[in-house]
Amino acid sequence: MAQDGQRLDVVIPGVEASSYPITIGHGTLSGVWGEILQTWPKHNPFVVTDSELVKAGHLQTLVGAEKVPTFTIDPAGEVSKHIQTVVAIVERMEKECLGRDSIIVALGGGTVGDIAGFAAAIFKRGVPVIQIPTTTVAQADSSVGGKTGVDSSVSKNAFGAFWQPAAVYIDVATLTTLDDRQYRAGLIESVKHAAIMDAEYFGFFETNIDAILNKDMAVLEQIAATNCRIKADVVQQDPTEKNMRRILNYGHTIGHAVESASGFELLHGESVAIGMIAAGKLEKALGLADDDRLERITNLLVKLGMPIRIPADITKEKIIDLLRTDKKAVGKWPRFVLLESLGAALCRDGQWAHEVSQDMVERCLDELY
Amino acid sequence: MAQDGQRLDVVIPGVEASSYPITIGHGTLSGVWGEILQTWPKHNPFVVTDSELVKAGHLQTLVGAEKVPTFTIDPAGEVSKHIQTVVAIVERMEKECLGRDSIIVALGGGTVGDIAGFAAAIFKRGVPVIQIPTTTVAQADSSVGGKTGVDSSVSKNAFGAFWQPAAVYIDVATLTTLDDRQYRAGLIESVKHAAIMDAEYFGFFETNIDAILNKDMAVLEQIAATNCRIKADVVQQDPTEKNMRRILNYGHTIGHAVESASGFELLHGESVAIGMIAAGKLEKALGLADDDRLERITNLLVKLGMPIRIPADITKEKIIDLLRTDKKAVGKWPRFVLLESLGAALCRDGQWAHEVSQDMVERCLDELY
Repeated sequence: MAQDGQRLDVVIPGVEASSYPITIGHGTLSGVWGEILQTWPKHNPFVVTDSELVKAGHLQTLVGAEKVPTFTIDPAGEVSKHIQTVVAIVERMEKECLGRDSIIVALGGGTVGDIAGFAAAIFKRGVPVIQIPTTTVAQADSSVGGKTGVDSSVSKNAFGAFWQPAAVYIDVATLTTLDDRQYRAGLIESVKHAAIMDAEYFGFFETNIDAILNKDMAVLEQIAATNCRIKADVVQQDPTEKNMRRILNYGHTIGHAVESASGFELLHGESVAIGMIAAGKLEKALGLADDDRLERITNLLVKLGMPIRIPADITKEKIIDLLRTDKKAVGKWPRFVLLESLGAALCRDGQWAHEVSQDMVERCLDELY
Repeated sequence: MAQDGQRLDVVIPGVEASSYPITIGHGTLSGVWGEILQTWPKHNPFVVTDSELVKAGHLQTLVGAEKVPTFTIDPAGEVSKHIQTVVAIVERMEKECLGRDSIIVALGGGTVGDIAGFAAAIFKRGVPVIQIPTTTVAQADSSVGGKTGVDSSVSKNAFGAFWQPAAVYIDVATLTTLDDRQYRAGLIESVKHAAIMDAEYFGFFETNIDAILNKDMAVLEQIAATNCRIKADVVQQDPTEKNMRRILNYGHTIGHAVESASGFELLHGESVAIGMIAAGKLEKALGLADDDRLERITNLLVKLGMPIRIPADITKEKIIDLLRTDKKAVGKWPRFVLLESLGAALCRDGQWAHEVSQDMVERCLDELY
């Protein structure tokens, strides 16, 4: 594929300034700044990134010799995804005399995108944000859809807003500096997209697994483009997550509980991998699937180096407790997204999340130790 | 007018869940809670109010014997309109185990409405807010339109969002506990509405000035209803303030500068009164108005006890300096909203804010000492 890569237009119904382009390529990062200045000539750019990205040289690649006001989140990662980081960003912007004509450029993984996107949503009642995701998770997932959020001192994602980006630039070459465990775990959101929406895409993963593990640029571009198409398709149908968008939660209900129970020792993607296996067990128990389907999913996750069993030190009781406090829980017990077939989420009576008894969930969890 | 009062429906184009009712009456506050519980039976209410409202007995009137989780802003007023108050509200809601099915009920003046509205906009990516404005300013202005915002440690309204209320309940009887200076200054937003949009309404003010100063309930209800109709009309035409909504800024450009230069010794309405006189001088200087128009405006403002001259200790230079840093300034010198006639803002070439030279502004300011 050419360096100028692919371009996709996302339109969110009912949202003002609702169309935004996603540009995908490899080795394209150095050209992005020029394009930003050309596309938004009347806006004053402000970059939000993190210390890891600076260390990897990506900030330098983006802005080149230009002196651009920048906020570097330090330390990088979840620990900084806090409302006080957003307060610090806004106050820095004010000290740089930036106003309503600012545009925030978010360079980094999901955490940077969440923090910078939320800062953009609430700075002076909202300024545009450009997302430049640099991890497998962020490129697959968090840069499209407009969900932003940060933690309070009490809980995760207590603060947030729906804020669609003005544009998304994906350079898959930024993935080469990502550590291998993060890289592989980040691909699980893509496997999830395939499982719920696109059987052919699932086959693409199976066929190209070696190229994927070797970070083949052409294959990664194709993955990025397919992810964005699937995510955009779902988000366009349900921009504020009233119903159908819940299918993106496949594998996440049990996945979140396992991630939290591990004290975040397990990565998000690793936990979702376990959650997808658990969902597969539920589908079998409910008579929705044969053995073959779960086997294909399990085989792919194993090749990607994912855990497929719950670590012994995480008790079933702990997971059940956490499921009861799930943020999407209705009547204190969550509903579960399930597959109709590989490549299609199950919809019954217009609902995309389904009741499953606690008893059945417990029996499926028992099989995962 | 009957206790069940008047009802107005506001529809904001392009905004989801965009229609909301405004109910106006006197002595109606004690019935509002029952209506909230009936209209939003699946939501968990959380009240945000301030210590002055509690002292005046309005919180008690609203919730009666019910035990409702409440955040009381203390001290009341602008000093608490800070991002850290919003953080405290959100963390209190989390500690009360409130989630996405919360509804925030804002009982108070403009500051309470701004703080609570912004908290609603960003709690868990947004929950509904019900506005119960209790001051002349808030009833005329800040409860309709969806503008919310709080200050940072660097500047005013650094944080904010457009967040339309789910409903607005106005009980004009709450105005009887307001101190007289606040009451009168708060009416200036209503005079502004009349000046920019409704000549007949301006006449109503002139005719009923004694009843207004005596807080006649029927007249106050009529003022509240007319304000909401005018404000809703403007907001519906331009929900995110791209153009026409700027007319609501009439008198505010110079008004804000005077208010700020006084160190907030002058109330907002008092400053806007001076700003309206200044706008009238500009209109005369530009050949847009005869003497009679400014005289009528001046007479009404005087009867309402407003200052019509700039206090001697506020220098013209200070005002000019502040105008340069106006948040709406384009190219470092703001544009001004002007009147075409009493009851109609001036629109030229599709623009509602107009270029006026610094020289002319200075000459008009000179006349105001």
